[in-house]
Amino acid sequence: MLTGKNLVAGDWREGTNTFKAVKAGSGEELEPPFMEASPGDVADACEAAAGAQPVFANLSLDMRARFLRLAADKIDALGDTLTRRAMAESGLPEARLNGERGRTVGQLRLFADEIEDGAWQGLRIDHSDADRTPPKPDLRMRKIPLGPVAVFGASNFPLAFSVAGGDTASAFAAGCCVVVKGHPAHPGTSELVVGAIAEALDECGLPQGVVSLLNGTDYALGETLVKDPRIAAVGFTGSRAGGLALMQHAASRDVPIPVYAEMSSVNPVVLMPGRMADAASDLAAAYVGSLSMGAGQFCTNPGIVLALDDDATRSFLQTARAALESVPAQTMLTAGILETYRSGIDTLAKQEGAELVGVGAEGAGPCGQAYVYTVSGRHFRSNRAFEQEVFGPSSIIVRCADVDEVAAILQGMEGQLTATLHMAESDHEAAARLVPILEQRAGRIIANAWPTGVDVTHAMVHGGPFPATSDGRSTSVGTLAIDRFLRPVSYQDVPEALLPGALRDDRTGNLVRVDGRWRLP
Amino acid sequence: MLTGKNLVAGDWREGTNTFKAVKAGSGEELEPPFMEASPGDVADACEAAAGAQPVFANLSLDMRARFLRLAADKIDALGDTLTRRAMAESGLPEARLNGERGRTVGQLRLFADEIEDGAWQGLRIDHSDADRTPPKPDLRMRKIPLGPVAVFGASNFPLAFSVAGGDTASAFAAGCCVVVKGHPAHPGTSELVVGAIAEALDECGLPQGVVSLLNGTDYALGETLVKDPRIAAVGFTGSRAGGLALMQHAASRDVPIPVYAEMSSVNPVVLMPGRMADAASDLAAAYVGSLSMGAGQFCTNPGIVLALDDDATRSFLQTARAALESVPAQTMLTAGILETYRSGIDTLAKQEGAELVGVGAEGAGPCGQAYVYTVSGRHFRSNRAFEQEVFGPSSIIVRCADVDEVAAILQGMEGQLTATLHMAESDHEAAARLVPILEQRAGRIIANAWPTGVDVTHAMVHGGPFPATSDGRSTSVGTLAIDRFLRPVSYQDVPEALLPGALRDDRTGNLVRVDGRWRLP
Repeated sequence: MLTGKNLVAGDWREGTNTFKAVKAGSGEELEPPFMEASPGDVADACEAAAGAQPVFANLSLDMRARFLRLAADKIDALGDTLTRRAMAESGLPEARLNGERGRTVGQLRLFADEIEDGAWQGLRIDHSDADRTPPKPDLRMRKIPLGPVAVFGASNFPLAFSVAGGDTASAFAAGCCVVVKGHPAHPGTSELVVGAIAEALDECGLPQGVVSLLNGTDYALGETLVKDPRIAAVGFTGSRAGGLALMQHAASRDVPIPVYAEMSSVNPVVLMPGRMADAASDLAAAYVGSLSMGAGQFCTNPGIVLALDDDATRSFLQTARAALESVPAQTMLTAGILETYRSGIDTLAKQEGAELVGVGAEGAGPCGQAYVYTVSGRHFRSNRAFEQEVFGPSSIIVRCADVDEVAAILQGMEGQLTATLHMAESDHEAAARLVPILEQRAGRIIANAWPTGVDVTHAMVHGGPFPATSDGRSTSVGTLAIDRFLRPVSYQDVPEALLPGALRDDRTGNLVRVDGRWRLP
Repeated sequence: MLTGKNLVAGDWREGTNTFKAVKAGSGEELEPPFMEASPGDVADACEAAAGAQPVFANLSLDMRARFLRLAADKIDALGDTLTRRAMAESGLPEARLNGERGRTVGQLRLFADEIEDGAWQGLRIDHSDADRTPPKPDLRMRKIPLGPVAVFGASNFPLAFSVAGGDTASAFAAGCCVVVKGHPAHPGTSELVVGAIAEALDECGLPQGVVSLLNGTDYALGETLVKDPRIAAVGFTGSRAGGLALMQHAASRDVPIPVYAEMSSVNPVVLMPGRMADAASDLAAAYVGSLSMGAGQFCTNPGIVLALDDDATRSFLQTARAALESVPAQTMLTAGILETYRSGIDTLAKQEGAELVGVGAEGAGPCGQAYVYTVSGRHFRSNRAFEQEVFGPSSIIVRCADVDEVAAILQGMEGQLTATLHMAESDHEAAARLVPILEQRAGRIIANAWPTGVDVTHAMVHGGPFPATSDGRSTSVGTLAIDRFLRPVSYQDVPEALLPGALRDDRTGNLVRVDGRWRLP
């Protein structure tokens, strides 16, 4: 069923060099071989995207929404075929991948609703006033798509952050064509999904240039794509090194472009003493569940836990140690990720003050074993190595002298996707001092839950200050993600016949700001 | 009355090295000498801004609005003292500067209203749903200020784009403290204005760290400021070279930050044949007025005019030539700007196919004389030198074979602040083909007016694709400018007591999106 070809605007193309996906964990090669996309394929995909861009950008909102819903239906229809291939390529379990498929199609459907809502267009109308000195012109604003977007598939979400993931869904919603650089760890999954999108394009009578999929194992492919002059923005989820490289490529272009890279986060979790006094054991069990879920391969994994150096924390550590023993070693996404994880743990173990709290069960083959360390606040503060993300099922518990030390550590941390407070009502006064610090450090503040789990909704921010993301002014999850791929245009005294429909006097639609006042439809 | 000192968070500081402002045109030195800010002054200003940031960010919206209105009142109260100093330093005429003061204080007051409107906070609330699988958390989003902003004063608007200009007003509105690098061409004007802001801070009981003013003639000062780790964003209006340098500094930081640089635009104007048949002479007269206004020192100066190579255009050229003769040579902002202008004209004159249409009157002293050239579409398309901005009272009329050539030229142009269509109803069909191209190239599309004149309102976009600005996703004029200095934060299951007031259940205020639905207050 799989061809191993690249999809360049409807054209399934062969290539000279090939690579194979491997079964996660075992390293066994999977058929078929996949062709490495050439620089010519990149150029053709970008040219086709640029060609399709005016058509796609100017679709009626109904049509664009219909396309997203149809793409969701087609991905749903891939059913077990998709799940089985994704399981083989990623090593993730069936339930997780079925859930991820649900999230992926749900996301496409949510963005279809969002397109129709229309408020994302940022419509504003200021009427003219001939009596003002100088006369006031008629000004009307809307947001338009930036242009073709390069999307890089992520290793850890072969569906929800890859070919038809959040970046693609929000770029499509904004009216941007997409050229996907597929992640080489799951090329078969990518091919199935892009085929579903291509079918949806076909049924909607839309140009095939709206989507292309390029496979490859060489970083140069991504660089060529980001530097193509027809690409207007970049979406990426992955390593810090990878994100930084893309940022540099984008900044070095003749025409620099925005990069939305989600990179690195240790997601600090604060265990406040009032809550710990009541629930240290429950918290510890939930903590071990959160840090080991999906072999810890979540960008919101709780990598750093801050607690007071007291009896409750000692009890937390004991429960965590015990709970860890029954955490099975898990297959990790790729051999490279496992190797990096192990080396990260080795580095951590060597840091002055690092004490092992406990480890998960050993695995038979090449699996990721869970590790939890603890360190004093003093040691943590004197050594930034503790703050480096170790991607996988590991975490560090920092024993702080008091809430002041917790505050000082949070204040000194890099930007994060999330920051969490576990607290009782008796902790609110102290927590009120921490919240303003967390606002400065993170995109999302969570109370009394664990950071893994990112709801796809309107008020979600999955973003945060650098290096959590390259651009903290945005989110990669939730409907606000559409805003990343838009820019405002103003029309001054443009006759009704030449105005976009959404800005005409006879418009129907959603939220518009008229002469400064917000008006519902 | 002027001290020549730098203002570092309320502290008027002396320095070792000094420079003097010069009377525009004459080169006569103006008193007093101004002190060059040191790297220590930069660090102290940024430290004070970072210290004031939490207080300023968390002010009630009423208080922040009050501060902006008071700053506007204090600037108004500077009256003639301000106008006279600005006239001497910039060479701009009295009426223009009084108008610019009105624009500046009007802008501050508009942003005060905008603060109170509150919709800029992007409030969103998604209620929890315990029955969903998995349970849906309560999520609430608002936008918060990025942090201290470095603002670079512009040479061509000593009031409206300098110390209390659009960048500062929108940064303050967003809740960001500001460190201004004053333009060395008008340090006295800058000192007067920053003094007014400092008085307003004082009367509001706000920390003086909210604003600082640093003077200097060395580019290294700006580099130090942009690279200071406490600076979170940059606002700049000036040359392309200057903007590009700031972009590089910002990208090279350990923590890269956004730069909003407004740089370079030739603002293409299309004269459509239907309109030209009726009004070639009227258009020519208005054109000469627009290109020579303020010695052409506007970022929206009509630098390139596209017309058909026909009788109407020949008549337009004749009228333009005649009108130019009565355009007086005008004092330019600085000797450096005059020199660059003259060298730009020399370069233009040497390009193959460039024909002189006419020149303005010669000046007695070192003044900017108006120049208009014409060139065929063919020559224009083969030589990108014609598309370079020549900052000053000059413009090029491109004679195109047909509307297709007009379209091809527009398609090939760099990003622009504005693009203009002069048209009659008979031109609408052809114009409808051009509008989608203009949307891709410009931040604002204007019909039947000249691009000089930028209304400060809600639907204004003064921005556009690179190199018009470094970041086409934004505007530097109008209320949407506030969005440049904000980022979203989400609060998950955070107890009412710890939520920001705007997100509480008992909130009062403006536009909120609740469970996906937009609600007016």
